[in-house]
Amino acid sequence: MKTITYIILILAYSCLSASAQQRAPYLISPDVQPDNSITFRFLAPNAKVVLLDAQFLDKKEPLTKDASGAWSITVPNIKPDIYPYCFVVDGNSVADPNNTYLFANERFKFSLVDVVGNEPLIHSLQNVPHGKISYRLYKSGTLGTTRQLLVYTPPGFAAGGKKKYPVLYLIHGGSDTEETWFKVGRVNLIADNLIAQHKMVPMLIVMPYANVGFRKDVFPKEVVNDVIPFIQDNYPAYTDSRNRAIAGFSVGGGQTLDIGFTNPDKFSYVCAYAPYTATDEFKGIFTNWNPDAAQINKQLKLFTLSIGKSDFLYESVKQNIVMFKEKNIKLDTLIVSGGHTWMNCKLYLANTLPRLFK
Amino acid sequence: MKTITYIILILAYSCLSASAQQRAPYLISPDVQPDNSITFRFLAPNAKVVLLDAQFLDKKEPLTKDASGAWSITVPNIKPDIYPYCFVVDGNSVADPNNTYLFANERFKFSLVDVVGNEPLIHSLQNVPHGKISYRLYKSGTLGTTRQLLVYTPPGFAAGGKKKYPVLYLIHGGSDTEETWFKVGRVNLIADNLIAQHKMVPMLIVMPYANVGFRKDVFPKEVVNDVIPFIQDNYPAYTDSRNRAIAGFSVGGGQTLDIGFTNPDKFSYVCAYAPYTATDEFKGIFTNWNPDAAQINKQLKLFTLSIGKSDFLYESVKQNIVMFKEKNIKLDTLIVSGGHTWMNCKLYLANTLPRLFK
Repeated sequence: MKTITYIILILAYSCLSASAQQRAPYLISPDVQPDNSITFRFLAPNAKVVLLDAQFLDKKEPLTKDASGAWSITVPNIKPDIYPYCFVVDGNSVADPNNTYLFANERFKFSLVDVVGNEPLIHSLQNVPHGKISYRLYKSGTLGTTRQLLVYTPPGFAAGGKKKYPVLYLIHGGSDTEETWFKVGRVNLIADNLIAQHKMVPMLIVMPYANVGFRKDVFPKEVVNDVIPFIQDNYPAYTDSRNRAIAGFSVGGGQTLDIGFTNPDKFSYVCAYAPYTATDEFKGIFTNWNPDAAQINKQLKLFTLSIGKSDFLYESVKQNIVMFKEKNIKLDTLIVSGGHTWMNCKLYLANTLPRLFK
Repeated sequence: MKTITYIILILAYSCLSASAQQRAPYLISPDVQPDNSITFRFLAPNAKVVLLDAQFLDKKEPLTKDASGAWSITVPNIKPDIYPYCFVVDGNSVADPNNTYLFANERFKFSLVDVVGNEPLIHSLQNVPHGKISYRLYKSGTLGTTRQLLVYTPPGFAAGGKKKYPVLYLIHGGSDTEETWFKVGRVNLIADNLIAQHKMVPMLIVMPYANVGFRKDVFPKEVVNDVIPFIQDNYPAYTDSRNRAIAGFSVGGGQTLDIGFTNPDKFSYVCAYAPYTATDEFKGIFTNWNPDAAQINKQLKLFTLSIGKSDFLYESVKQNIVMFKEKNIKLDTLIVSGGHTWMNCKLYLANTLPRLFK
């Protein structure tokens, strides 16, 4: 059925575009089977070496070429999840040209493959009420531009209604975009599912674009002076710190710590996922830091650091944990297996969402 | 400034990802200059021929290689617009790996370049109130799945308010997705600008996903039985035909004609942009078609066909025009220069939006 669909699309497309007729023949890739094996295919008759670089593999694996110049590899028994992958063609990494599901990122070119499995996962599309994701344009006084952010509103949300909502500000990784938590992290489906299971308070989840270019130090100002006011002006959001959380991954995890601890009056929940803290901003805030721990512990209802044991930032995060403990800041840790990946990222988010605003 | 920003991003990223360290060196591409020239760059030390395939060119143009293996070409004096392009590397078309602005499409891999120019265009980000785009999941009884559609709501829209809105259902091209009118067509900015200029009635614009795979004939049912009811259940939409329009491009233009003329009681506005009509569905409806022209002309407040003279469907659309005229259906045509492109598509949309619901 899937094959027939694709053939029809190809035929329709061939009629429509002159350039399409010069296109390489179509291959089905990735080809996920019910037994959770995946076949990857890539047409490159002149390539010498084609490798699969996938986040379910420990190392890159070679594809083999057939007589038509199509390279392929089948990997069995993959644990259900959504994985980034790319092909390394004679040393150059390229996304899978036959896969339209791309990783939203400004630097690397990963495709994504969704191994659905037999049991619904927390990020799976399930038969539950769905919230929505809105793309909003807002003026940033800090940056002097109009910028885009995404807002998740839960099922049943009514902008003009009387019900008010708490707000989570959720920051992407270093070269990600404001779309990554939606397109790769499936934040909307995770929230829909947790809300349907009564495990999570319905909330707004705001995903700004954290890349501010040259002036990295201004992002905290952008959040406090532009993003939060825009949300509070345009959504029925609670405006007290008890109803405001911040979380982020990687560079966004570092930004979460920077923003959270320089604005302890504004956020009662600070959740850093595999935070990258080797930044001037972090050093500026936390070197010779002399916090009023009792006051901070009173203000923070939850402060959590999450990390995978294979994450290249594991040792760094362990040092962060030591530092915060030395300063007597009460914190909660989630240490799991896995690396610096969006598979882990979804896990961290699904772990903290049920703990917010309760 | 732009260069510095990118260098910082690269440095930050290099620290963050092991695989990043194996990445090819970064090149700035596309590099748009204030004089509306663009330099395109592509690293491929081992490639024999690299061509630029861009929709502002009449034919593919060769890039030249420098000693580092970086290929480049500079094209001067490009008319401000948003253009798809790709590189053809030893015969294979690839998107620009240094450009994150990608064409939302299921088959081809075009990058996009935005030549902003000095004067704001109708699709430019301007200093006006902005509406929003929402991604919605809805259940399709017709297809038995949960599907995604996009909804534009105009500035000042309040879901729970008393004000009701007319609705335009807007269909993408054959291998496009429900995102293409937003990401490539800039429907939200075009509408924001036209509304700010008081040229257009504030309306909802609904963008469903028109690719239904094998059963192409069911898309009209999907629109009528699933999409329209979902919108009417979830938005303050007028529900009479005088406040309902349908428009679409290419395959979506053909679907627009199919849906519009099989449901003349449901749509008062039918706008087909470069429609592709060599389909079984179109033949089934319009071969030996014996319409009550007087009745249709009374129901339709606007029926328009738009086409570019260089469009590969120009002759086909001329035949469509003859056919509708022979049947005494009142129609309006917009015949302009240009081809089967999204540059023209934006023009067609900007031309019809001011004519709806007046």
